[in-house]
Amino acid sequence: MMGIFMAGKTKEADVIKKLEELGQKMLSQIDAESSPTFTTALRSKGNIIYDEGVGYIRLGGKTEERKFVNVGQARKFMQTVAIAAKCKKFLKEGAHTSIRGLFYQLKFSLGDNLDEELFSEQSESNPLVEDLEVALGVKREDLNLNTDRKGVVAGPLVLKDKFGGGEDIIDCTKQGRSGWMIPSDVDNGMEFLEVGADYVLVVEKDAMWQRLNEDKFWKKENCILITPKGQASRGCRRLIRKLASRKLPVYVFTDCDAWGWYIYWAIKTGSMNLAYLGSDIATPEARFVGVTMSDIKDYDFLGQLTINAKEVDIKRAEEMLSYDWIQHHKDWVEELKTVLKTKKKLEQDALQGPRLSFVGDYLREKIAKKKFLA
Amino acid sequence: MMGIFMAGKTKEADVIKKLEELGQKMLSQIDAESSPTFTTALRSKGNIIYDEGVGYIRLGGKTEERKFVNVGQARKFMQTVAIAAKCKKFLKEGAHTSIRGLFYQLKFSLGDNLDEELFSEQSESNPLVEDLEVALGVKREDLNLNTDRKGVVAGPLVLKDKFGGGEDIIDCTKQGRSGWMIPSDVDNGMEFLEVGADYVLVVEKDAMWQRLNEDKFWKKENCILITPKGQASRGCRRLIRKLASRKLPVYVFTDCDAWGWYIYWAIKTGSMNLAYLGSDIATPEARFVGVTMSDIKDYDFLGQLTINAKEVDIKRAEEMLSYDWIQHHKDWVEELKTVLKTKKKLEQDALQGPRLSFVGDYLREKIAKKKFLA
Repeated sequence: MMGIFMAGKTKEADVIKKLEELGQKMLSQIDAESSPTFTTALRSKGNIIYDEGVGYIRLGGKTEERKFVNVGQARKFMQTVAIAAKCKKFLKEGAHTSIRGLFYQLKFSLGDNLDEELFSEQSESNPLVEDLEVALGVKREDLNLNTDRKGVVAGPLVLKDKFGGGEDIIDCTKQGRSGWMIPSDVDNGMEFLEVGADYVLVVEKDAMWQRLNEDKFWKKENCILITPKGQASRGCRRLIRKLASRKLPVYVFTDCDAWGWYIYWAIKTGSMNLAYLGSDIATPEARFVGVTMSDIKDYDFLGQLTINAKEVDIKRAEEMLSYDWIQHHKDWVEELKTVLKTKKKLEQDALQGPRLSFVGDYLREKIAKKKFLA
Repeated sequence: MMGIFMAGKTKEADVIKKLEELGQKMLSQIDAESSPTFTTALRSKGNIIYDEGVGYIRLGGKTEERKFVNVGQARKFMQTVAIAAKCKKFLKEGAHTSIRGLFYQLKFSLGDNLDEELFSEQSESNPLVEDLEVALGVKREDLNLNTDRKGVVAGPLVLKDKFGGGEDIIDCTKQGRSGWMIPSDVDNGMEFLEVGADYVLVVEKDAMWQRLNEDKFWKKENCILITPKGQASRGCRRLIRKLASRKLPVYVFTDCDAWGWYIYWAIKTGSMNLAYLGSDIATPEARFVGVTMSDIKDYDFLGQLTINAKEVDIKRAEEMLSYDWIQHHKDWVEELKTVLKTKKKLEQDALQGPRLSFVGDYLREKIAKKKFLA
């Protein structure tokens, strides 16, 4: 699958051209007295594949064609065309908005001819915008639509943010206790000036990131310290992907529980709802540094700091063990079986038990000895 | 009520002294063969007051005394003393952690003699830590305990962050699309070098903040643009309070719905669960700039961009109208009655309907004409 993220400079012109071509194709269809059509990749479950060969979740080859002259599709078709027109306008104005902002622009133009629920910020899938992303081979970020942003960075990474015609230099070694907040779009109008790190460490929890930042772990270890603050946003996954493409190893540090496992696998292989972004947001090279139940063998005290696994952890462990592909990850199988057997789990915070700075020693040792789950 | 936030320099020494005094008092009680005691303000509903005179929620004068020699209190008492000891250690080490990190330090020392549920990050009240905050007259941030951070700033504000012995200068006019992320603690080790703004604008939604940041609203209007990203964190409320204390007017811009109203009133008057912080996090000077149902009179198009009020909005409007103090806010009474009558609500995003940059024009006009709800 080809990457659909585009280089900064000529992006607007390229995307506008693609939007215009979409319109021109429809106009020719009308001229030829046939119904305008719109072709997009099928994004339903039957066309989502975990491709073991490449190591990430992607769409298969199935497509679907929407017809304007179809009672069930006419309204959505019109809405899609209206979205395309709005996005072209945003690109020409050089202004960004959110899905919700797009919704109100459309509501202003179309009135009640609008499926409000398709534009909910809460809804993870905004199907009409996704249609357009997939059909055009661009991302919504390229259509000047911002996504929810989350996550923070510290370490040897210097960026030039050319947002809004400006030129702000962001040095991620000089952001104090706060760190640099990962934006929605880390491609357009953004230049990586210096990436001087030896590796990338992704830490599930913001509280743990703050702990490591206070100890200047990123300085001592010359790494880029990222927290997605839980599940990684699109922007955060894309940033990790971009750093991995510069040959930086990526290590992920989460709780040993359902949520932590999900965060790791989503960074590594992508996720079902973003299958259409495939290789652009997945980092199959990522390795899992901890915490693991098998850590208890090496760090005795962790045995007394386990807590009871919840139902969701047990269910998730069972589910993961039922996948075929997990059998190629023997360490993971053992790990999940230990959770099921002991009905216990471990949080990354437990590494602060003996002393606050212990977590840094743990990470140093595991990374030096390459004690990873793949 | 006196402010309990402390100036940076001598903070550690002061807090350590307070912790030691607490311990010494208990030791003298033991020497005198009486049970150690611990006095703290009562934080239950009966001692929480909305003080109309000062305009914020605070604790009343009731206190309670915990006794070590009391079957129902001995365990909690021991845990409180253990927390005090740990916090003293953190202060001496100059290291911070989260409530969850504190939990694991205690679990390492105390084993199962610990009420895990009191240290849940999810729980808004971590009662034992609150006990200590109130009894000592310090904040948990002064005890080196980080709280959840959230919220972003752009505009003419320059800070020196002396975190971890460093000296990072953060210029909030040079943070690109990202902004400066508001930390847990905006008091200790933090200096405001320049505050060159005419006012502070607090914008409920991050997406709207990004819209205004892209239009450089803060530059054109010379204001400090803050988003709490929904409900304001402790650090965000404290920052707003500190800026208001420098005589900057504070204007709050939220949705016209239950959530938006709550965000405004919590910034202005504080909230029940943080009543013990009283004047330190409340900003009674804050004014509500919009959106309001009465905006529809001045901006016709908003009439077609209302959406249906949800049950929670209706219930909250009814509840607010039942308060005595709301009767002193006639504009609010009218606003809430309009929502109940029309069963409609308005989102701040609706101001992007006619064009993306309209929201800036709206804010400029309302602020210039001082069209606020108090």
